[in-house]
Amino acid sequence: MDVELHLKVQDLNARYVHAIDEDRLEQWPEFFAEDGRYRITTVENVERGLPLSLMYATSRAMMRDRINSLRNANVYESQRYRHAVSTPLIEPGSDGVVRAVTNFLVARIMHTGETTLFATGRYEDRIALDGQARFLEKTVILDSRQIDTLLAIPL
Amino acid sequence: MDVELHLKVQDLNARYVHAIDEDRLEQWPEFFAEDGRYRITTVENVERGLPLSLMYATSRAMMRDRINSLRNANVYESQRYRHAVSTPLIEPGSDGVVRAVTNFLVARIMHTGETTLFATGRYEDRIALDGQARFLEKTVILDSRQIDTLLAIPL
Amino acid sequence: MDVELHLKVQDLNARYVHAIDEDRLEQWPEFFAEDGRYRITTVENVERGLPLSLMYATSRAMMRDRINSLRNANVYESQRYRHAVSTPLIEPGSDGVVRAVTNFLVARIMHTGETTLFATGRYEDRIALDGQARFLEKTVILDSRQIDTLLAIPL
Repeated sequence: MDVELHLKVQDLNARYVHAIDEDRLEQWPEFFAEDGRYRITTVENVERGLPLSLMYATSRAMMRDRINSLRNANVYESQRYRHAVSTPLIEPGSDGVVRAVTNFLVARIMHTGETTLFATGRYEDRIALDGQARFLEKTVILDSRQIDTLLAIPL
Repeated sequence: MDVELHLKVQDLNARYVHAIDEDRLEQWPEFFAEDGRYRITTVENVERGLPLSLMYATSRAMMRDRINSLRNANVYESQRYRHAVSTPLIEPGSDGVVRAVTNFLVARIMHTGETTLFATGRYEDRIALDGQARFLEKTVILDSRQIDTLLAIPL
Repeated sequence: MDVELHLKVQDLNARYVHAIDEDRLEQWPEFFAEDGRYRITTVENVERGLPLSLMYATSRAMMRDRINSLRNANVYESQRYRHAVSTPLIEPGSDGVVRAVTNFLVARIMHTGETTLFATGRYEDRIALDGQARFLEKTVILDSRQIDTLLAIPL
């Protein structure tokens, strides 16, 4: 077992969710490679082989646009996320690329203070670990299909 | 501190909850020794010294029967779990056997998409780490006693 | 990356939350240095620079008083917490002192069995790792401001 590799992935996950949870959304694209892919879908879509996405980006530039829209539309200010992220399952690949699967639970806190269990699911990630660790691909697979209309901030 | 031992236990926990959360229940008995024990009880039962169990198995064969019943009764299809598992507390023993205590929160997602915080508690495990890591004994201690009639899938 | 340091902090976090979740509250002050500081506040207070606290202690003696009051007032028996704690973000400092930031979700279980997502937020800690690992300072930053009147047990 490659101990350092495990901790690098855990550390990347921790930095990723803290940036979101602390509303440092401008940093979000920086966790991805320049042509990194980000997709939110549901377990139902995955099991049926459907290519549907609730959020989709294929570059850092698209992610920056997304955050700009959010900030201007001012939607994000009324809510916050808090992630609980479990230990990832890791499968080392070739060329310094690692696959990781990670469970998450996300609470949403409205500006009134109302707190709900907002989203659950797993991340399926491909990560480049040479140099600064970055996501080549991050697929967020939600357990529930009831979430789409409420989804503003990336997960 | 034995770093590798800690990560082996974390890895076993991660594989265990992923198998359940992704509905690969046929793999569930394989996480146990042939004569492994699995028990779900409540903190109230433990504190009163009561031997009551909400689910109980003393071998892989019994666990396979449980899963067969579930599949045939077709109950499991209407719901899913998602576990958040914290870092285990580990106490190395003799003969390659380790004791681990691990907090968990489990969300339940109905096929309608309705998501609730379903169960909380701790795992108290005895784990054999020589060769393939396996549970010799896994006791699931639930914080709440309100759960029993709803319990279909192992936790 | 200092692997052992990461696991020491994870282990301290795990022991800390287990002591609380298993109602061994008398052990709670022992996780702090003799003049350790403990404070619960909200993200709103932090962002506005307000020094308001929902709970505050500047020594182990004050923490022991707090637990004594709890036990005598007998409030704590009617409820339990269960923490889900994520991987900490760690920043090593000088003199064996480490800064750690850790996400948490806390479920509260009433004696009736009713379970709710009670509190979410992050720990911002300064930890002394020479000898027995201990908190020099622990700040609990809650995401929601709706919690104060319900807060009995430390988080």
